[in-house]
Amino acid sequence: MKERMMTGDRVTGKLHLGHYVGSLKNRVALQHQYDTFVMLADVQALTTHFKEPKQLSQYLRLVTLDYLSAGIDPNETTIFVQSMIPEIAELTIYYSMFVTVNSLRHNPTVKAEALEKGYEDLYYGFLGYPISQTADITFCKATVVPVGKDQLPHMEQTRKIIRRFNQLYKPVFAEPRALVGEFPRLPGINGDSKMSKSKGNSIHLDSTYEEVLNKIKKAKTDPARVKKSDPGHSERCVIFTYHQAFANESTEEIYEGCKTASLGCAECKDKVSKSINQLLEPMRERRDMFQKNPSQLDEILMEGTARAQHIAKETLHEVKEAMNMNYF
Amino acid sequence: MKERMMTGDRVTGKLHLGHYVGSLKNRVALQHQYDTFVMLADVQALTTHFKEPKQLSQYLRLVTLDYLSAGIDPNETTIFVQSMIPEIAELTIYYSMFVTVNSLRHNPTVKAEALEKGYEDLYYGFLGYPISQTADITFCKATVVPVGKDQLPHMEQTRKIIRRFNQLYKPVFAEPRALVGEFPRLPGINGDSKMSKSKGNSIHLDSTYEEVLNKIKKAKTDPARVKKSDPGHSERCVIFTYHQAFANESTEEIYEGCKTASLGCAECKDKVSKSINQLLEPMRERRDMFQKNPSQLDEILMEGTARAQHIAKETLHEVKEAMNMNYF
Repeated sequence: MKERMMTGDRVTGKLHLGHYVGSLKNRVALQHQYDTFVMLADVQALTTHFKEPKQLSQYLRLVTLDYLSAGIDPNETTIFVQSMIPEIAELTIYYSMFVTVNSLRHNPTVKAEALEKGYEDLYYGFLGYPISQTADITFCKATVVPVGKDQLPHMEQTRKIIRRFNQLYKPVFAEPRALVGEFPRLPGINGDSKMSKSKGNSIHLDSTYEEVLNKIKKAKTDPARVKKSDPGHSERCVIFTYHQAFANESTEEIYEGCKTASLGCAECKDKVSKSINQLLEPMRERRDMFQKNPSQLDEILMEGTARAQHIAKETLHEVKEAMNMNYF
Repeated sequence: MKERMMTGDRVTGKLHLGHYVGSLKNRVALQHQYDTFVMLADVQALTTHFKEPKQLSQYLRLVTLDYLSAGIDPNETTIFVQSMIPEIAELTIYYSMFVTVNSLRHNPTVKAEALEKGYEDLYYGFLGYPISQTADITFCKATVVPVGKDQLPHMEQTRKIIRRFNQLYKPVFAEPRALVGEFPRLPGINGDSKMSKSKGNSIHLDSTYEEVLNKIKKAKTDPARVKKSDPGHSERCVIFTYHQAFANESTEEIYEGCKTASLGCAECKDKVSKSINQLLEPMRERRDMFQKNPSQLDEILMEGTARAQHIAKETLHEVKEAMNMNYF
């Protein structure tokens, strides 16, 4: 039997190249090796977007379209909707009982958010994110979780919660392991360290050929290279990082060309646009196909969710058995 | 249509006289007037008892037996099991998104517990108690909630959460009102201000005639009255409070007798034992009846839970509709 891999995205907008190299590429590559579950995290989207749930329905379908376009095969991968698995909420509540508030406050992601926005405005649901993630992973008994490096502390907390559950009740769950992607962060076109939905510095997976060209043209390059004859510093240039992420060939030539000023920024950008468009072209074809048939997309979601529901029921039954809570 | 009343008990042990005068008596009296829901709070029992869920199954049935013995009529009242209503967990999660950690920390009950046990050991689930209570009340759209005075701040927080939900999404819920019982607190036989499961100072509803006599004999009286000829102070004596709670006649005579030392403590205790046994006698008869037929008790629980499940589904559908989260 294949090991189960669990992953997903908060449904807060369309996916971009950062998502692709950070996790989606990996999921596509690994979906034959693992029994892959991909969650559309609409409930967790509410931790930050509780004021605007109206867009969830639209984003849910856009993200699914991004998955399918990127090569997620619904015959291999179970794509499902978080809010339609009540067992995830139930597991979250059970785990809540034995996780201290302090251990959650020490979680680096929670800490960073609280420092940024102030503890005054820290929401209870957000504070519980590590518990909720544990419920996501355990409802389907996943043992492999692809994450970015920044999520490793979350995974450590997940393992702690699982160990505590197993020790308090019965050893129901195996401790999952993290699978760290090769490109955990892709910089934004404005030079920010991370391409981010909320910062408008992204190249979306549904970009047209021209949109890629235009965004790359506007992208920030090495500020020290003012004229074409100035030597460039690839290590400070987002374009070079994009080459590393998307070029099919070696990037040594690019590096040398930039350093010796024999390769100009315009030409360098053209090359990277070409690589990105080469990646996106087959995605566009698949997207067209699925867009022509929206009911098929809904069917995929409903089938995946039904499969997840079935497994969730079994797991919750086992959890309640371990806690002596199946009364009748 | 009758208004809906929602109440319940954490399933952490058998019920005692404090529960009876604090809420159970009221529920029995009001069950014809309101569409009454009584919840066996096994999930909330875990906020303090997560280490020993094994007893839940036993306590669940003992408390149900207490209810039925005390006069809760399963044809009038819906008795149900909290853990079997996943929608309560789901509502808890949705409300969590817009309730700040700070507002929960300021809840007097949470504060008192945290001061006693230290913030180090405050559990996430316990901190969320006011949110969880809001889910209990709203899943069945109750508008009347009988509570002790000490729970009024909880109710205020519940109303706030409901207002916030209605304002963020759609006005799904009416704000419930609290119904404060006449005897919110009954002192323990050891003189403690509150009869409490965990303190061993209780007279349980399933006490035999002799157990009542013995417990009352051991009960603490006015310490200033050493000899029978000393004048007593009823206002400092738990026995007098029991008279006020359980005597069918006026307690003025008792008060005068104690003050003038014409009534001795032994005789006074006999009188109160008699009143308590008069109350418990019909309960014993009903208890015998139900104990002879344990499958009937399980049927009552399953029927009540099925009714609650049906209503919970409808409410959650409406909640998700308000949040635009019914996708298919």
